[in-house]
Amino acid sequence: MSESQISKVPKASAHAFDEAIALEPVEGRLRGRTHESYWNMVSPFGGVTAAVALNGLLMQSERIGDPVSFTLNYVAPIQRGEFLVEPRLVRSGRSTQHWSVQIVQAGEVTTSAIAIFGVRRPTWSLTEATPPQARGVEESVRFTPPRDLMRWPAMYDIRYARGQLRQNNPDSLTHSWIRDAQPRPIDYSSLTAFCDTFAPRLLFRRPLFVPLGTVSLNIYFHVDGAELATQGEEYVLGVAQGQVFHKGYFDQQAQVWGRDGRLLATTQQVVWFKE
Amino acid sequence: MSESQISKVPKASAHAFDEAIALEPVEGRLRGRTHESYWNMVSPFGGVTAAVALNGLLMQSERIGDPVSFTLNYVAPIQRGEFLVEPRLVRSGRSTQHWSVQIVQAGEVTTSAIAIFGVRRPTWSLTEATPPQARGVEESVRFTPPRDLMRWPAMYDIRYARGQLRQNNPDSLTHSWIRDAQPRPIDYSSLTAFCDTFAPRLLFRRPLFVPLGTVSLNIYFHVDGAELATQGEEYVLGVAQGQVFHKGYFDQQAQVWGRDGRLLATTQQVVWFKE
Repeated sequence: MSESQISKVPKASAHAFDEAIALEPVEGRLRGRTHESYWNMVSPFGGVTAAVALNGLLMQSERIGDPVSFTLNYVAPIQRGEFLVEPRLVRSGRSTQHWSVQIVQAGEVTTSAIAIFGVRRPTWSLTEATPPQARGVEESVRFTPPRDLMRWPAMYDIRYARGQLRQNNPDSLTHSWIRDAQPRPIDYSSLTAFCDTFAPRLLFRRPLFVPLGTVSLNIYFHVDGAELATQGEEYVLGVAQGQVFHKGYFDQQAQVWGRDGRLLATTQQVVWFKE
Repeated sequence: MSESQISKVPKASAHAFDEAIALEPVEGRLRGRTHESYWNMVSPFGGVTAAVALNGLLMQSERIGDPVSFTLNYVAPIQRGEFLVEPRLVRSGRSTQHWSVQIVQAGEVTTSAIAIFGVRRPTWSLTEATPPQARGVEESVRFTPPRDLMRWPAMYDIRYARGQLRQNNPDSLTHSWIRDAQPRPIDYSSLTAFCDTFAPRLLFRRPLFVPLGTVSLNIYFHVDGAELATQGEEYVLGVAQGQVFHKGYFDQQAQVWGRDGRLLATTQQVVWFKE
């Protein structure tokens, strides 16, 4: 874990992402504030909300090990302004910890998550999945939705190497290069946010505007802190695809590959949609 | 047992699975009891534990809609005997509900889960994933571990159409037919248990005995209750594969297909292992 991730108050020159996930201890809880630069359409970008919740756990002094599994349910939209993060240690073992964490605003739960942290030790190792032969960063198409529609994409450098948003693609499989627009060394918080940068799969199969929103995000982390730190400010490669769109919900799953071919995280989410 | 015999027995006690997930309201909580027939090596079969937690939510009178997303963390082994299930409604909207649920034994949390329920309405629909051309049930190999090692597999009729347990397979991809050994109409509880019947992927790549155990199970349900009910007592087809085994943990993801080609659920889990 890098010291910068633990620091409570961002420095004057801090990265906007560090500002967005910054939390201040207040009477046994943690206080944060929504960040305009990471605003989505009606609430903050879900990736940053997830990173805030995870950061609340990373900051805990009793915390041991690295995040292994993290599942976050988006209960209600977060409104502009302050919120409280409430971590709870469910059980601590010698090398595994179970946590829950909620984000609360005006006494109402907006976000509910459970997480497992583990001290990772060397074992037999095999990566069965293989990264795709993706088109290079320079030949890929920058994801730039209108700034008045949502602000957070401008905070990222996301380039689609496969798949065209808002077109009838033959499938929803995309390859996307991802990094912070202002480069920042990858850590668990930013990797968590990256896991929610995959545009809704529905928009690759049916290019209509319909109300939609992620309701649950699940992430498995596959590297320890030292391995993650070696990624530096490099792009990661996201491989994302949906499996089924049916009766108001669809899923999407993704792999996040380091530029060195290491599988950093796998993630899935379920998205609500209308019509 | 003949059909006529079954019809005379009350439904709640007709099938061992219903006994295993049965819960009795006790002072605002629910009391259950471990079932010998679903015992794993040191605790109950994780699929039944997940089904118990989900059943605790399904039984709530305030509950609306069908389960959409369910994530359960195995915090500590459940001991033989009684346990308490503690559901909590986090937030209820008109068509979506957020719940959390814990299983507690002797005042300690053994199991922690969060769930989303939704009222599913007709929308545009597409299944992008496709079921494999799997070998038939009759040509598949019955999964029968020694009964003194674990008892729960005898409660299922699991037949591997692809992948050989405890051998060096070229990959961890398996096709398995699954149903209750004593046929029982599929419902959300049994489907939940089916999602944990996929043998640990490690054992398809490295056929050694090492300590291991699922730490987190995630399920997305893709059909509503009426659609699920049409499956009856048919086999479902599970397609499961792991992506990475590294530093003490590996993942596995799976699709559960109805015999009619409908994608009933997708699931993933992360498993701890030693060495």
